[in-house]
This record gives sequence, structure tokens and C-alpha cells, in this order.
Amino acid sequence: MKKTFIYLFIISIAVTIINCTPKTKSKQQGALNASAAEKVYVPPGEHDDFYAFVSGGFSGQLAVYGLPSGRLFKIIPVFSQDAEKAWGYSEETKPMLNTSFGHIPWGDAHHPDISQTNGELDGRWVFINENNTPRIAKIDLTTFETTEIIEVPNSAGNHSSSYVTENTEYVIAGTRFGVPVPQRDISIKEYKGNFKGALSFLKVDPEEGHMDLSFQILMPGFDYDKAHPGRGKSHGWFFYTTYNTEEASTLLEVNASQNDKDFIAAVNWKKAEEYIKAGKFKTMPTRYAHNIYDEETHTATTKWGKEVRVLDPAECPGLVYFLPTPKSPHGCDVDPTGEYIVGSGKLSADVTVHSFSKMMKAIEEKKFTGEAYGIPILDFETVNAGSVKQAGLGPLHTEFDDKGHGYTTFFISSEVVKWKVGTWEVIDRKPTYYSVGHLMIPGGNSRKPFGKYVLAMNKITKDRYLPTGPEVTQSAQLYDITGEKMELLLDFPTVGEPHYAAGCPADLIKSKSKKIFKLEENKHPYVAKSAEDVKVVRNGNEVHIYMTMIRSHFSPDNIEGIKVGDKVYFHVTNLEQDYDVPHGISMIGANTSELLIMPGQTESFVWEPKQVGVWPFYCTDFCSALHQEMQGYVRVSPKDSDIELSWSLGDE
Amino acid sequence: MKKTFIYLFIISIAVTIINCTPKTKSKQQGALNASAAEKVYVPPGEHDDFYAFVSGGFSGQLAVYGLPSGRLFKIIPVFSQDAEKAWGYSEETKPMLNTSFGHIPWGDAHHPDISQTNGELDGRWVFINENNTPRIAKIDLTTFETTEIIEVPNSAGNHSSSYVTENTEYVIAGTRFGVPVPQRDISIKEYKGNFKGALSFLKVDPEEGHMDLSFQILMPGFDYDKAHPGRGKSHGWFFYTTYNTEEASTLLEVNASQNDKDFIAAVNWKKAEEYIKAGKFKTMPTRYAHNIYDEETHTATTKWGKEVRVLDPAECPGLVYFLPTPKSPHGCDVDPTGEYIVGSGKLSADVTVHSFSKMMKAIEEKKFTGEAYGIPILDFETVNAGSVKQAGLGPLHTEFDDKGHGYTTFFISSEVVKWKVGTWEVIDRKPTYYSVGHLMIPGGNSRKPFGKYVLAMNKITKDRYLPTGPEVTQSAQLYDITGEKMELLLDFPTVGEPHYAAGCPADLIKSKSKKIFKLEENKHPYVAKSAEDVKVVRNGNEVHIYMTMIRSHFSPDNIEGIKVGDKVYFHVTNLEQDYDVPHGISMIGANTSELLIMPGQTESFVWEPKQVGVWPFYCTDFCSALHQEMQGYVRVSPKDSDIELSWSLGDE
Repeated sequence: MKKTFIYLFIISIAVTIINCTPKTKSKQQGALNASAAEKVYVPPGEHDDFYAFVSGGFSGQLAVYGLPSGRLFKIIPVFSQDAEKAWGYSEETKPMLNTSFGHIPWGDAHHPDISQTNGELDGRWVFINENNTPRIAKIDLTTFETTEIIEVPNSAGNHSSSYVTENTEYVIAGTRFGVPVPQRDISIKEYKGNFKGALSFLKVDPEEGHMDLSFQILMPGFDYDKAHPGRGKSHGWFFYTTYNTEEASTLLEVNASQNDKDFIAAVNWKKAEEYIKAGKFKTMPTRYAHNIYDEETHTATTKWGKEVRVLDPAECPGLVYFLPTPKSPHGCDVDPTGEYIVGSGKLSADVTVHSFSKMMKAIEEKKFTGEAYGIPILDFETVNAGSVKQAGLGPLHTEFDDKGHGYTTFFISSEVVKWKVGTWEVIDRKPTYYSVGHLMIPGGNSRKPFGKYVLAMNKITKDRYLPTGPEVTQSAQLYDITGEKMELLLDFPTVGEPHYAAGCPADLIKSKSKKIFKLEENKHPYVAKSAEDVKVVRNGNEVHIYMTMIRSHFSPDNIEGIKVGDKVYFHVTNLEQDYDVPHGISMIGANTSELLIMPGQTESFVWEPKQVGVWPFYCTDFCSALHQEMQGYVRVSPKDSDIELSWSLGDE
Repeated sequence: MKKTFIYLFIISIAVTIINCTPKTKSKQQGALNASAAEKVYVPPGEHDDFYAFVSGGFSGQLAVYGLPSGRLFKIIPVFSQDAEKAWGYSEETKPMLNTSFGHIPWGDAHHPDISQTNGELDGRWVFINENNTPRIAKIDLTTFETTEIIEVPNSAGNHSSSYVTENTEYVIAGTRFGVPVPQRDISIKEYKGNFKGALSFLKVDPEEGHMDLSFQILMPGFDYDKAHPGRGKSHGWFFYTTYNTEEASTLLEVNASQNDKDFIAAVNWKKAEEYIKAGKFKTMPTRYAHNIYDEETHTATTKWGKEVRVLDPAECPGLVYFLPTPKSPHGCDVDPTGEYIVGSGKLSADVTVHSFSKMMKAIEEKKFTGEAYGIPILDFETVNAGSVKQAGLGPLHTEFDDKGHGYTTFFISSEVVKWKVGTWEVIDRKPTYYSVGHLMIPGGNSRKPFGKYVLAMNKITKDRYLPTGPEVTQSAQLYDITGEKMELLLDFPTVGEPHYAAGCPADLIKSKSKKIFKLEENKHPYVAKSAEDVKVVRNGNEVHIYMTMIRSHFSPDNIEGIKVGDKVYFHVTNLEQDYDVPHGISMIGANTSELLIMPGQTESFVWEPKQVGVWPFYCTDFCSALHQEMQGYVRVSPKDSDIELSWSLGDE
């Protein structure tokens, strides 16, 4: 055991040292260089061909890049507060970060997945999971805003998530860390058999995309690492890699690396639906937050879920099977036809491929080699379709092009390997800089990949960019995959950890992108749509300001009669109805962020003045030639002052 | 008055409509295109030539880009919380956001300026101001971390800031909004004469760069918009543009646009030093936060300033003069020789240039046309050196190359105009997309510009990139300025508002960039440098965990004996001593962010468990092939439990 540990440690160090020296220190001057330059250059004013939605990992957000240029268009705030956009600070968006653990200002965002229809990208929503406080978010691709976040109960480390089935019937979640379900005071040493792993199925409303926690399957306390849905012939199934089938609870780098094979769990979710329909579930009391942002009121609210239907696989025959897979498999990927399920054993040199047809046959013929907690274990040789042999060190993830190839990342040997589906022969390999995790081909985990580029997402960069002190950026690399050999085109740095990405042809999304919010549709309870609606209302020590903004003034811009101890709500409506004319507002002394308000939108912040005086507010977003003049004042009088509430604009 | 308002409104709308159609919708196919592509392409593994430190405006942060590629290497958290890096969330960095108004999670960052020696960039620090809660921050360019933030009292809207004198003797601040000084309960209508504008001089320690509030000059209640130091012959002076010399307090877009000329305030800071030395100041009681991050303890602390020395210009002859300047001047820029002071009247068609020599002569000869609040007003014709005539609409900012040219942005006509210093003739103009604010030439506001590129920073982008809903990115544009005519090379989107930037040749900084923090120099009070230091200590209901992390485990990774109601501090030391091996840690249920800990560093977060159970923590930064195994558990027992505190790693 000790030996394994030391061996791995040495490999890891050795590889790190090798990685420090760029393997092909790019001296591609001249023609070749120009070619790559031209391939990624998008001339000023022209548009990229693809959107790439790249998760921020520990940033908790989702970043929108263009490909091939690698330019960052927007960081969509999802699970973490974002002071730039007042996300999680404004009164309207604070509820989006509610959880059963309270208001959580941060998240660990991992796997974005674009909604699908008939197994093809439909460009309507992106779903993305949060690891630390198990949650799934939905981003609307007309507004590029997070419009829903649902917490996943009975889970910890929601890693094998969030993937959609081929008609977006479900988006799924799966726990990485085993925990007592329900939680209870128990010694960590009693992990084995007592800790569980919940796999969750969230039903997606086909019109609005609203998520609803439909049911959970309570699995053994293995670590559920990654997942992908079946498609085509395997539609109706979901596949999850597991590690720590040893059920260790300490020093996992050694203790969870003992078994030669762990499992891919194959879950028949259509069968699950039957069991649910037949009432074969238990209803467990629980508590989880379900936060929905309403575009008409521009406001989020939280509902609390109180119970969940749970299926026990030991009591539901045919619901789950285990496919033995070497060794601590990480990536779990399904090819476009739905026939092949690829498990990348991160401590294996090979990439293991299972056959869905063989699996179905093995199930029919009951080719089991045992069972684990009541779940049948299928015979490895019977279900195995083959493997990509000795392709590199530390295989992690695979995506597919539209020409019958798989592309697998190798973390330890830092490379992307292209191989042929069916023959499993290696066709090409290219180095990555360095330590690649996921890779992404637009549509590469759907029935219809767009095989023009592969994007490799690296964990380490060291010397690849100008240095920025001890903390250096993580990075993506873009390869042209239209030829037989891959061609490295571009390194570009990323925000947070580029954990995984979902890509989509631009045309699927751009024409539907919303330009403004219509003022006449604004149903915010504190909206002011015109001069008549502008007012300041006192209710005890709570004061509500119904304010408007338009180039280049606030109305009102002078307010008197506020007192120390008041709780002052600024409800600010941007009256503009033109594209790209946001305004911002900030107030000195407010213990929150500014608001950045889009045309037609209303947002609110709260200010609790603690000192008498005259305090300015101003527009924070350079909006016109007279932006600097867009300001106002609030007079704050003592608590016992008899100054009446008054407000004005100009000499009115 | 009404007319002016409507007129400007119409202009603004008209210009907006014109702007919507790209003026030269780029159809530069073929050779020209390839040329621009090659000029901005930095092949994978090679380095950019320049650092650009681009302020985030309302994001509150400072972004580090490479030029010519336009790639974003790091967002340095400064004034706003950043959940990605735990900035403002970790116990060590929370004090950095302390102010006299409490803990402020957001800021409006505007004007970065790189430290100088002999009027040339020295690449040691970047200073940047915050507008809303007046502050100045210092970023260390060996670690690329914010190491100091000082609050500026008696101010509101700290906009004409933060610029350094030519040996970084001072970094300056200047208030944009007039306020009562000291603050008091007074009607907004009594603005005129009663509201003041403070200009602040912060002494910079030449070794460590520490800032110290040296003195303030209490000016009339005009709006102090922008500033620049004299250099060379004008070293010892500082220049500030003003608007709202009308002293309006409402509807400023009309009421502050009445005067044909406002002022550039010329402040003789060497004279100020003499007055201070002679005791001609008043000491005002005040309260401001001074937050310093100590690299040895990896911890920030706040000291409170209690008073400030104030000079009254009416009582200090020779301290301040006013140079009349048309019309609501915004940018205030000084050419590399120090002779020319350029004021860009944003409601003027011309760019006005004053002569420092003429100003000195006029002062000597007392060519005054009046005075304002005791400050002499110099005769316009006597000090004026000339003007760049009818160059565009809405001039804002000017920078300089090393060949005797000025480059001025025009917001309303959306262009950069190149002109000749001395003859004031226009040499070239290029459109921007759209509504350009600042521009930046590396070193372009110093005695030694590096005139290879100019970076234009735009406020509006509309259709320039793939759309992202109602909120679209702001943007920078890079022009090659090595020829007589400028050449547009690249559009790249930016984070937040690219308000202003400071650029620097890479060689000035990159060799000094720190790679790790040395563990042996770590003086954090809760550091654990080895297995012997690992422990868990209870003190009442406060529990301190001295934890270490190294590929790929935490020590300890199993902890029992924690109880509901405890306040649990995780103090986590990253034992790695290799470049680019950070680790992260997050804990389910902690109402804060994860920590992202650099090699050799210690950071802390607090967790207040509310439910019994067994709760996992894990590494949030993909650190090795066994990163997924880097996890641990904490058992939480009831408040009255008698479970003893214990901790372990593996089978020890």
C-alpha cells in the first residue's frame, strides 16, 4: 500500500518536472505560424463560429468564450457572488444563493451541458452543477442569465452531474462523497455499508426548462465521479463511473486505489420511472432550496422542498447494473451512436470501452459475476467492446467527432489522443501544456458532434504565459481536428478552473439572444416606468425610493428627510429601451455592491446610513458624454430630526 | 437651459444610431488580414511583449492582459470580494475591505498607474483608485496581489486619482463630488460655497511602497475629474481638470454644462510641502481605514487614521492657480517633456493645450483675470499654447508616443485622433467601436513612452461580438502606431468596464515575478509546516484546525469531536514548494468561499456547523492524478455530546 503511494508520488513529481520544459517550444515561424494565426483570428467586427460555455470550477461561474478566437465575452454569475453585476448582493438576486445551509456566496461549478432535442443540441439552456453545496443551475440562453438553482438533498460533492438526457427529459446529479443518508452522528470509521451515494433525477419542464426533483436512487457509498446519458439505442439509460469501491474514508489517494477494477453503474431510468409509477419508492423528509428568477418581476424567490422519493436498487430488480472497469475510472462517455460506453481508468494505461448491445445481452443472459449491495455485477469480458491500448498515462475524458473518432485526454502524460471508434487504434496524439483534464468538441457528447475543433482544458500552465506571481492562470488549448492529424492553434488563458465546457455553433443561439427587457412587461413590485411613478415612501424606518435612470440623470436626484437608522431601499428602473445602454448606481456607505441595470429592468439595493451628512450617488457605467454628470445627493439628518421627506429633479 | 439639454440629448441619440452600423464592417480578407492576424498572434508557448493592467471599473478589480494578444492572464482582486480566490472572504483578507463605513464588498476601480523612477516606469507597483468609497490600493508586481488599501477621508467620488509623481513621491487622490467637509446635516440647496472638494497627497515609502496620508488641500466644491502630474520641467506640480464650476447639485447634465470654460487646477505640491513644514495647516479629526497585507504572516490588518492635515488654498498664496479650459474638461494629460498640459473639454470640439512655461511666466507677471474662492484665475490667452482644432466630437483623453505625437479619444464621434505636439495638426484618425473612453500607450503618461501600440477602451460594443443577451461585454481595441497611420489590429472583450489601463514592457516585470512563498518564511500564527504541527485545538466553542495539504491529501483528513454551535477555523497550509501547485479547500455548509492557497501560504476560513452528521471537505483545485481522492470528513455531534476531539490521517 505504501509502495503504491510512493510510486504514484514519484510519477507525479517526475511528470511535473518534464512538463516544466515545453515539449515543442513553439518556434513555428513563417508559413505554418501564419496559418495558425489566420485560423484563430477573427477580424474586428466579425463573429466567432462557436460559443464555448466554459465552467469556472472553483470560481463558481460559467464563462462564455468565442471559438476560434478564445475571447471571453461574459462571465455569467451562477453559484458565486459577483460584485460586478450585483449577483447575490442585490435584493432581487440574493435569494438565488439560498440553500438549506443558509446563504452560500460561493460554489464549485463543474460540468455545463446544453439542452438537447432528439439527442442534438437545441441551444435553449445550459445546465451546470455545483459540487460543494450540491446544486444544479439553469442558464437561459436568450438572456445569458442564471434563472434557476435547485439544491440536491442527501448528497455531498455533486460531481457526477449535470448531464441531460437526449430530449432533456432529465438533468441528473450524483454524489461524489458518501455520507450518512439521512445525516446522523456516526463515527467516520463506520463508513463501510453505512454511508450512501444518491443519484438524483431532475425532471425538466419542456417549455420553461424548470427543474423538479423527481426521484433519487440510493446507491452504495462509492464515489460517483462522472456520468453520461445513453443516446440512440441506449436512450433510457444513464452511466456513472465510480471509484472508492473500497469504501475508504481516509487517505483515499492510497486506500481508494486498491481495487483493480471499480464500476460503471448503468442505471435504467425508464425502469426507474416504472418503479416510481408503481409506488415502489420511499418518501424521505428533507429540506432543499429551489430558487427561481422570474424575468417579468426581475426577482428571484425561494421555495423549500420538503421530501424526496427514493428508490433502493436492491429492491428494484433491473434498475442498476455494475460494469467492472479498470481502475478508478474518471470520465464516463458515450459515443454518438449510443453503442459504446467509455470508461477512463485514471490509474490505468488503457481506455476501456463497453458495448451497450453486449451489456443488454449479458443482462438478458444473467452473465453476473457477483453482486454489490444487491446490485448485479456484469461479467467484464462479456460486456467489454475493447480498449484503446497503452495510449498514454492517466486517461480522463473522451469526446467524439462526427467521423467516428474518439479523443481522450491523458492527465499524467499531458496529451490528447485521437483514436478510431470500433478498431480502438490510435491515430494521432498531441501534447497539451500541461496536465489536461476535460476536453470539448462542440456537440461532442451528443448524437451530432461538430468536429471542427477540440478544446483541451489544462490544470497547469507554469511558463506558458507572462508570469503573474505565484498564482498563474489555468488555460485552454484549441486544436484543429478537420484533418487526420490534430493541429495546435492557440493557447488561451481561462477564468477560474476551466473544468469542462459545452460548445455550440453560434447560429443555434445568436439569433435568439435578447437585446433589452421590455419596459411595458416589467412587473417588478417597485418599478417606476415614468415620471409619475417616481416617489419616495416612508414606512416606519423603512424608506423605499422608486427611482428612474435615463441618459443622463436619475429621478429623483435630490432627496432629503432620510434619517440615521433608516433602512433605505433604492429601487431603480432603467428606462432605456435601446440595446447596450445599461446604467449603474452606487451609493457611498452602502455595504453592498453597485447595481448594473439592463434596459427595462428594475433592481434594488439597501443602504443603512450611519452618519448625518449629504451623500452622493452616481452612475457606475459610462453611459453617455454626460455620464460624469449623472449623479445625485441624499441628505441624512439625525434620528430625531423633523425634516420632511422630499425629493426632486432639477428646478421642479 | 432646456434647449441645451434637448440638443445634447438629440446628439447623443443620433450618434448612438450612427454607431450601431459598423463604419468599416471588416471585410479585410487576404493579405492585409493575415498581416493583422500575424501581428497579434502569439504562438502557443511564446510570451506577449507587454503587460496591460486594465481597471475593471464597476467590477472593482484590476485585470492583467498581454499585448498584442489581448489575452487575460489574471483578475487581481482589489476592492471587490472575489469568491474565486476567497478575497474578502478568508479570515486573512477580510480586513482589506474595511472602511470607515464598515466592510464594503465592492468598489469602482478607475485609474491604474505604475510606479515611476525619474519619470520612467519602474514596474514595482500599480496603484489604483476607488471611486465610491474613496480609497487607493497598491498592487505588488512581484506577487500580483493587492497588498495595501488606504481610505481617503473628506472625499466622495475619488475620481481624479490615482496618479504618481515622477519618483513616486506621492500618489494622489481628488474628490469628484463636492460634500460638506466635515460632513454635517445641511440642505442640498445650500451646496454653493458650503460644499468642498478635497485633493489628497499620499506619501509613498520608496522601499516598500507603503502609503501615508500626508495632507489635503481643501478646494471649492467643483467636481475634480481627472489629474496628471507634471514631469521634467513641471515636476513639482499636479494638474486637475474640473467641471461643475457652476456648483450645481441637481440635473447636472444641464446645470453643470452652462459655463463656457471651467478650470484646470494647477497645484504646486512642492509649495504645499513648504506650507506643511511651516505649520500652515489645520489638523482635522477624521477616521479612515488603512489596511495592509503582510506577506510574511499572509494576513491583513487594519489601522485607523484619526486626523488629517489640511491646507486652505486661500490662505496659502502660490499653492493653486486656475487655468480656464473649455468646456467641462475631462482628461488632463501632460506630455513627456512636461511642457504641455492637455485639457479635453468633453463638450468642446477642440482639444485645449496649455503651456507650462507660459503658465509660470503668467504667474510671475500676475496675469490674472480674477479669482475663485481666493484662488487666482490665470488669463486663458496668456497660458494657452494652442489647440487641436475641430478634431472630433467629445474629446476625453490623451496619451503620447515617443515621437512627438498625442493621441486623443473622442467619445461622441467614436475615434482616436493622432496629432502633432507643437503644431497641433491632425495626422490621422481611426474609428473605434464604439464610444471610446480612455486610451493607453505603455508608458504613454510618463517621460518615456513605448510607442508600439495604442489600446482604446470602449464603453459600448453592441454587435461587435457574438451576443450574450441584454448585457454585452465592454471592449478594447488594439492599434499598431509604429507607422504614420494607425492600423486597427484587434478587438478584444474586457472584464467589467475597461476604464483605464497602465501598460509596461514585459521585461520590466517578468523576471521579478515571484513563483512560490517560501515555507520557512511563513510567519502565519496558525501555520503548520510539518506533521508535527498538525493539531486540532478547542478553546470553548472555538476550534482551530492546524491543517496541511500536499499532493494528494489533507492532514488531518478525519476529525471527530466537533459539536453543533462550534465555530471551527480551518487554518490550512499548502506545503508544496513548486511553482503552480496551488491547492484549494472547501467545506460543505460553510457560508463563505473556498480557499485557493499558493505554495508556502496559509489561509483560514470559518465554518459554523448547524447540523449533526458527517460532512466532507475536499481540494477544489485539480492538483494531481489523485486530486479526486484529496478529501476528508468532519463528524459533528450534538452540542451536549461527550465525543472527544480527535483527528487522524490514514491508519495512524
